Parts: sequence; structure tokens; C-alpha cells
Amino acid sequence: MTTIAIIGAGLIGRSWAVVFARAGLQVRAWDPDAAVRAALPDAIAQTLAAGDMPPEAVERVTVCETLADALQSADYAQENGPERLDAKQALFAEMDSLAARDTILASSSSALTASRFAAGLVGRGRILVAHPVNPPHVVPVVELCPSPDTDPTVMDRAEQLMRDVAQVPVRLTREVDGFVLNRLQAVLLAEALSLVDQGIVSVEGLDDTIRHGLARRWSFLGPLATIYLNAPAGVGDYIDRYGPMLSGLTDDSARGEAFTKAAGDKIAAAFPPPDQVAALSAWRDGELAALDRYLRSRDAATTKGL
Amino acid sequence: MTTIAIIGAGLIGRSWAVVFARAGLQVRAWDPDAAVRAALPDAIAQTLAAGDMPPEAVERVTVCETLADALQSADYAQENGPERLDAKQALFAEMDSLAARDTILASSSSALTASRFAAGLVGRGRILVAHPVNPPHVVPVVELCPSPDTDPTVMDRAEQLMRDVAQVPVRLTREVDGFVLNRLQAVLLAEALSLVDQGIVSVEGLDDTIRHGLARRWSFLGPLATIYLNAPAGVGDYIDRYGPMLSGLTDDSARGEAFTKAAGDKIAAAFPPPDQVAALSAWRDGELAALDRYLRSRDAATTKGL
Repeated sequence: MTTIAIIGAGLIGRSWAVVFARAGLQVRAWDPDAAVRAALPDAIAQTLAAGDMPPEAVERVTVCETLADALQSADYAQENGPERLDAKQALFAEMDSLAARDTILASSSSALTASRFAAGLVGRGRILVAHPVNPPHVVPVVELCPSPDTDPTVMDRAEQLMRDVAQVPVRLTREVDGFVLNRLQAVLLAEALSLVDQGIVSVEGLDDTIRHGLARRWSFLGPLATIYLNAPAGVGDYIDRYGPMLSGLTDDSARGEAFTKAAGDKIAAAFPPPDQVAALSAWRDGELAALDRYLRSRDAATTKGL
Repeated sequence: MTTIAIIGAGLIGRSWAVVFARAGLQVRAWDPDAAVRAALPDAIAQTLAAGDMPPEAVERVTVCETLADALQSADYAQENGPERLDAKQALFAEMDSLAARDTILASSSSALTASRFAAGLVGRGRILVAHPVNPPHVVPVVELCPSPDTDPTVMDRAEQLMRDVAQVPVRLTREVDGFVLNRLQAVLLAEALSLVDQGIVSVEGLDDTIRHGLARRWSFLGPLATIYLNAPAGVGDYIDRYGPMLSGLTDDSARGEAFTKAAGDKIAAAFPPPDQVAALSAWRDGELAALDRYLRSRDAATTKGL
């Protein structure tokens, strides 16, 4: 694949443009908002500079005035529109009618499964979700989730594209609400909010438990490789020995009832006022970029079969 | 505090000895197994060398022939015996009778709360759990969990000691099964095993989702600081907007029923045979040490109020 369309060029679309352009692909970007289109080249140039990426990548990004123009000659389109079902349905209907028949159409949706906006479209076989973590140019995982109608060869091509641009594709075999990432995040957050709301641990203590504890191994091994390495007699034996204990801890764990305003307020009180979020997010993205460089410099777990 | 007793010098006790000795404290270590005692100085020297730590720290570790000798003049004792209630009860009764009255007695227990082995002892007010992640010399978090009888000033002193030796103490206000860390790990593992067992994602894909996704932010921010930075209008607004979605994902999430032999076998099949666990664990510990050095070199989240 050589040409990528970016449909919707807000924060996520812009970061996707960086992912594809820095890998040497041609990018055709469109946004319905003229101001967003006008700001795009400078925004991309700044992102490249902040991340020590090749500045000439910006020259591979063409800002297009129309959706049709952006899709022109695209092998793959990454959509980043509003996260509303009616908006996605309208946009994908239009994209499906405008794009060449073999252009893959992927959505960055974090919550809407592809069947909900692809059903009934002629080209539903080339539509999937490619869900990134924000911002994708510094967090490599991409969940690829088909609808029941998505052609397996489309999934293969999307997976290969993501590998080619140095992202890490995770392929789901079928649709599930929240995909994998947000399902895992949701269960952990529910228990985290509950422990803080009950006063068992402070907000800072909760974050420290993950940050200086579990996430240390998870950031280069993942949670299953972590238990494999704690199971000298095999994972089956580990489940035999620790399953009852772990099972007991989940039997009274928190669920949806944990997401209360009281818990939200308690968390908010532990952090700076919201007007500092923008500046702190920029700092976070710089740290994510540095961590990505660090981890790529040592990325040996896979070579060890982990 | 200047003198630390290490009670039980297997893998965890040895790593604790490194934590205290490299920080300049005197360590008095005892194990009931004479072979473990004999091997201890070499094992500690090797750990120090592997981690580029000062080799002379080994000279601050005294191997003691008896429990009484190890507790002699200790300000704080870190117990690392077998994870069985009868064994802990017997050991703490003996430690309580031997140690000077103001020696703090802490257990590395991951599953037994302090009230279960401290109840009825004269010195129950100086007994707590100080639960590390293995191995503590490269993973800094330590959960400090009191029994209902633990004196708050004992908790204060234990917390200060852990800060003094550059660990990260997380103080719980009361006992809860699994403390915080294993409660969070258990809910995530249940959902992870279920998604793999259902065939929605591969073992590798599940690990990639955490490793190249969620753990990137969690390794320097923690999960609550992560949502704070995704909440430009405040965490309350975030819960209002995303709470129903997250709640929906937890309503049908997996619990104890996920810890099945079938799921264990599926995970085992994705990894090298168990006879490689020892060598791969040594590699993991080297990576944990390198990651700890990296994160300490950038440790700025706390200075930003995060």
C-alpha cells in the first residue's frame, strides 16, 4: 500500500497522519472543518519536530478540500469522525460510495462496532474498526476488529499495513463491545474506583500500585507472559494453585456500580485543576514518545517467545 | 533505622537484603535451611553485580545462625517464610517473643492478612504486612497493610523506612483480601483469560494490548492519572460521559469462573516449555532493573502533581 486517506484530522487523525507519513507513505487528509484543514501542516510539522522524527515527512501529507479528493487513489482510509452512530453511518455510506472498490475503510472508533455502521453498505466487506490508543504515533497498539461481513483478506491487508508502519496490530476474531483494550481497562478501573471510594487506598497509592508495581512487568511482558514466568511448573499448575485465590478476589470485585460521581469527585480532588490538562497532556505525549523509543531499543520479549 | 533483620532468605528474602544493604543499612539474615544460609553471600554478590550496584553492600549483610541472633538489635524485621497460615502463626509468635519490644515485624505475605497471624500476640501492635512485588530490588512498590491492631506510628515508621531505601510504599487503611495489587491483577486476569478462552483474541494479542497499549501510560502515570488526562472538563465529567460505557463493559465481564484449566492450557501452549522459565525469569529481572533505571531517570509525574 502506498497511499493512505485520513478522514477527520483532529487530534487522532493528525497523529495517524504522522504514523503513515513518517513510514514513507503518501497521506491524503481531509476534515469537514476548513480551520482544521488549514492548521494541519503546521500541526504535523510540530508533532514531527517534538518527536525527533524526519521533518520532510510533512511533505508527504496532502491536505484535501473534499472527502472525494482524499479518497482518490487511496489504498486504505482511516476514519476519525465523531463517535456518534448516526455520524459514522452517514460518513461510511459516503466513503463507500466514493472510494474505489478495493480501498480498505477503517474506523478509529473506540466504542462502535463495525457492523453498526457498515451493515447494508455495498462495500461492507472492506470495512473494519482499527482502534488506536491516543495518540497512535507514540502508542503502537491498534485493535483490528471485523464485522461479521468483513472479508478476511481485508483483515490480512490491514494487519500487514500496521506492521509495515511499525504499529502493533491486535486482531480480534469477532465483535465484542469495548474490543479487548477497553474491556480490560474497564474492569481494572471499576475495582480501582471502588478501592479509592471505600477509602482503602488513596488516589496516589492506587496509581503507585500500578505504576511502580504491575505495569513494570506489563510494559514489556503483558499480563499472560507475566504469569507464565511465575509458573515454574506450567500455567496449568499456576491456575490450580492460585486460581482459587484469584477467583475469590474477583467474586466480590466491583463492577458498573463503581462509576459514581462521588468516586469521580474524589479522584478529581487529588489532581491539579482541569485547566492544566492540556499542558500536562503535552508532557505525557513527550514521555510516551521517550518510553516508546526506550522499549523499542530493548524489544526482546517476542524474540524469546514471550 | 539502621539494622534490618531478614527472616527467610529465599528468592524474596535475598532481594529484600539487597534493597536494605544497598541503601547503607546493616542487614542480619537468617533462614532455617543451612544450605540457604551458606549460599546467601554469593547470591547477594551476584545480584549486586548483575544490577550494577555497589559490590561492598554485601559486606553489610551478616548471615545469622539463629532467628534470635538475626533479630538481635534489629529495628525492623522483614519476614519471608512459607505462605501457610500455621507456619506464619508459629514464626510470628516466635519472632514476637524474641525481638526487642520496639522492633517492627513485617511480613512479605501476598495473601494472608496480618490479623490472621498476629491476633493474640503481645506485640500485635508492631506487626503488619509489607507486601512486595518479586523481586523488590527491581520493582519498587510495597503494600503496607495494617491489622486492626497495628499501631499507626508503626505504619508511619515502616512507610518512612521504605521511602528511605527508595522503595515506593502504598499504605492501605485497613485489611482487604488480596490487598490492592492482587485485587487489580485478579480482575484484569479474569477478563483476559475469558477473552482468550472464548477465542476472541490470541494469547499474544492479549499481551500486546496491554504491553503496547494500556501499560505504556500506566507505567509512568497510573490508571487514575491516565483518566484525569483524558478528562479536559474534569474527572466528574469523564465519569458522566464514559461511565455508562465502562459500566456496560463490566456488567458482563468475567469473574472467578474464568480461572479454568482449559484457559491455563491455552496460555501454556502459547509459551516456551516450563523448563525455560528459570532462564527467562533471569532475563526478565535484568529488564526490570533496566526499566527501573530508565523510569527513575525521568520520574517526573509526581513533581507535576500526577
